[in-house]
Amino acid sequence: MSKAIVSREQDYSQWYNELVIKAGLADYSAVKGCMVIKPYGFAIWERMQRALDDMFKNTGHSNAYFPLFIPKSFFSKEAAHVEGFAKECAVVTHYRLKNSPEGIVVDETAKLEEELIIRPTSETIIWNTYRGWIQSYRDLPLLINQWANVVRWEMRTRLFLRTTEFLWQEGHTAHATSQEAVEETLRILDIYTEFAEKWMSMPVVKGVKTANERFAGAVDTYCIEALMQDGKALQAGTSHFLGQNFAKAFDVKFLNKEGKSELVWATSWGVSTRLVGALIMTHSDDDGLVLPPMLAPHEVIIVPIYRDEEQLKKIMEVVSQINSELTKQGIRVKIDADDKHSPGWKFAEYELKGVPVRLAIGPKDLEKGTVEVYRRDLKQKQFVPQDGIAPHVKNLLSQIQQSLYNKALAFREQSTVKVDDYTTFKEVLDKKGGFVLAHWDGTTETEEKIKEETKATIRCIPMDNQQEEGNCIYSGKPSKQRVIFAKAY
Amino acid sequence: MSKAIVSREQDYSQWYNELVIKAGLADYSAVKGCMVIKPYGFAIWERMQRALDDMFKNTGHSNAYFPLFIPKSFFSKEAAHVEGFAKECAVVTHYRLKNSPEGIVVDETAKLEEELIIRPTSETIIWNTYRGWIQSYRDLPLLINQWANVVRWEMRTRLFLRTTEFLWQEGHTAHATSQEAVEETLRILDIYTEFAEKWMSMPVVKGVKTANERFAGAVDTYCIEALMQDGKALQAGTSHFLGQNFAKAFDVKFLNKEGKSELVWATSWGVSTRLVGALIMTHSDDDGLVLPPMLAPHEVIIVPIYRDEEQLKKIMEVVSQINSELTKQGIRVKIDADDKHSPGWKFAEYELKGVPVRLAIGPKDLEKGTVEVYRRDLKQKQFVPQDGIAPHVKNLLSQIQQSLYNKALAFREQSTVKVDDYTTFKEVLDKKGGFVLAHWDGTTETEEKIKEETKATIRCIPMDNQQEEGNCIYSGKPSKQRVIFAKAY
Repeated sequence: MSKAIVSREQDYSQWYNELVIKAGLADYSAVKGCMVIKPYGFAIWERMQRALDDMFKNTGHSNAYFPLFIPKSFFSKEAAHVEGFAKECAVVTHYRLKNSPEGIVVDETAKLEEELIIRPTSETIIWNTYRGWIQSYRDLPLLINQWANVVRWEMRTRLFLRTTEFLWQEGHTAHATSQEAVEETLRILDIYTEFAEKWMSMPVVKGVKTANERFAGAVDTYCIEALMQDGKALQAGTSHFLGQNFAKAFDVKFLNKEGKSELVWATSWGVSTRLVGALIMTHSDDDGLVLPPMLAPHEVIIVPIYRDEEQLKKIMEVVSQINSELTKQGIRVKIDADDKHSPGWKFAEYELKGVPVRLAIGPKDLEKGTVEVYRRDLKQKQFVPQDGIAPHVKNLLSQIQQSLYNKALAFREQSTVKVDDYTTFKEVLDKKGGFVLAHWDGTTETEEKIKEETKATIRCIPMDNQQEEGNCIYSGKPSKQRVIFAKAY
Repeated sequence: MSKAIVSREQDYSQWYNELVIKAGLADYSAVKGCMVIKPYGFAIWERMQRALDDMFKNTGHSNAYFPLFIPKSFFSKEAAHVEGFAKECAVVTHYRLKNSPEGIVVDETAKLEEELIIRPTSETIIWNTYRGWIQSYRDLPLLINQWANVVRWEMRTRLFLRTTEFLWQEGHTAHATSQEAVEETLRILDIYTEFAEKWMSMPVVKGVKTANERFAGAVDTYCIEALMQDGKALQAGTSHFLGQNFAKAFDVKFLNKEGKSELVWATSWGVSTRLVGALIMTHSDDDGLVLPPMLAPHEVIIVPIYRDEEQLKKIMEVVSQINSELTKQGIRVKIDADDKHSPGWKFAEYELKGVPVRLAIGPKDLEKGTVEVYRRDLKQKQFVPQDGIAPHVKNLLSQIQQSLYNKALAFREQSTVKVDDYTTFKEVLDKKGGFVLAHWDGTTETEEKIKEETKATIRCIPMDNQQEEGNCIYSGKPSKQRVIFAKAY
């Protein structure tokens, strides 16, 4: 299979699909809208999971596991939630198959009394369970997360970005007071921000969603929004303050210190395998994936260049030495001394796979005591003495991590414009995309009309947004602040 | 809630259920047959996952993720597999709900053309995918594992031991030769054995299943079998050599080094959250859970005993010091200085939760420079100098780990008997249970009759079984070896 992929300029969407497939990140499956996450893609997700899981645990959260199935009736219990989620979902109606002359068929005698829904999100089943777990203030706060698969029946899907089944984490916490729940919501938003910026090298804007874009059942939805290279926004994580909505719907009360019964306060929050898509779209180039070292399955690939077994043996002595020095520094290294493929094939392969640093060692390097060091993000090559290679690489990796962030931030800044009239607004969205900062009159009606006419949505109202007087670009009505508009994934 | 649980002698089955619920390991859910894994139970599963995952990765395996849904037609492709799995399973028939005067109902216009089955195991969808991934010998071996939820519609369920939905890992490997695939099957069996014996302190017998107990679609099923305290066997893990059955069914071929097309050889293997049930049943006692330190979420709980804030402050200085010494040794410690509960409540709680070692420090210990060290498995208390407490505890933990194994092994040895006639066979099974070593004529017919009459099944034919002449206890026909019979979970 050729390793060349179409360029971003030629066809951004095709570039993305080809990259995902050819770099071995994911594959289409036999089930419409569902993807297979291949080992290399899954290894990136595992690194994301580990980092996030550590952050959740360090802030007092524990993991648990709730059922895949949700009784249909649960969806009717929270009025707003039902509108948002009880629509496009997978419905289990039977529990048995049988043989028939036409082959295997559904056994009509094995029909469920109440249909089961594959969870699109787990608030309902979790709050139904919390009722049994929470009696007193002593049981609060309850800080629980789960790593799970969820299903939302999507008509138009994209690998990683929008799939019918996807993997995610969903946190569900219960608190004695509104203030504690809001603090939790924002604590998680900070964790998501730190993860996006530090681990993914992906700058994000923290903000709050408008009523229209709010999670079904939430009082407030906070989010982090990133900007992709094609000028489209991507919601990378959300954290919801749910008020007492689910406690009311599922009758979850606790006795406070004074012995008085009160409804419990709630939050929920999640990020998904969609982040892998965001990571790809933030940094990658026309030669393939570019990975920030902290999330790369291998930070360094070492390729020995040899003509025969004897040469290989000598080179491998140096390779082993370097490998052990790098590993001692905590660097994740892979050695590819395999004779199934040529060095040229391997170079192209690891380029495509976005390994941050490649070391090549050939006979000439043996003579000179050097290593060829190749930096994937800038495509720069240099020869470095074998002596002191480990600190050199360590330093290079942290430079790459920072440099990717800086580059993405510079791109976002270039792509963020203030606009004060609707004609320019439409022009910018059509030609350049990006984040458009504009005044909005605060109504859902205006928001929806703008969406209808331009496909742009309000991504968020940034936290600590600067207050300034202005007029809505659409209605001309007075406005006190700009919000971020963009076309989005 | 009272912490007392019924004794094993009184009602073993109730003892198990009460222990699981009261120790906070799991809970029943609103969905029939599905459980909620609570944080404490999930933390044990996470430790199991981490240990197994490391072993898989150290032997060259990678994780990936395949869809939850399997098209119904896939089950018909492998003749034996369909009989075993296309029966009691969850069937998705629709993909939308809608509002109606009666509330939310299934939208009959949103019916799937082909029903989707929630995976009971993933051989079919994985081998359908492997067809696209394997072209040449260069693509082999393919060593993939996934951690996932699966669903088998069970009529009679038990927390952890048998639930409609459960969590597991399923490995699916592809090889160029039969020999390599068999080696892989046995390599995994060894990993499972090492995990059971070293981490779970649970002795197991390695063996091969009879044709009757074989995985549907396998050429050979290998297993590890453990013995529970009530004399019933529990299958703790299986590793299958699948021959070329799935390669044939899904047309997966590769070009060998000579350029000739051949069918690929396969294995699959899995362990599940059932292991948590096995762990509980192997070591626990009438006071609650007993955990081997290597799998305990906390190996040590420290409880300060104090009358007032001033005392607490002084004691916490010592507690912090001890905590830091233990943590430096890599020991997982929890401190419970919480004033929501009394020391008595805490002692009972951690007893029930099976924390291997409890340290209590009160005012007298401050004076004397001692710590009260309590060992959960033997319920032994002693006073130990604060000086040198870390190496003392470290040593104690490894003693406990070993001692639990020894005790379980001694129990199994006591509970393993050779029997040569059918009357005694039935008597032993009725009164004492355990592993019964008996001659069997090798036919499925005899095996099924014995099962019908006694509920005992052949757990396995042990690996490297001693060959000896004898007569089948049921048919009297000649036999060359004894096999292990037992009633099983």
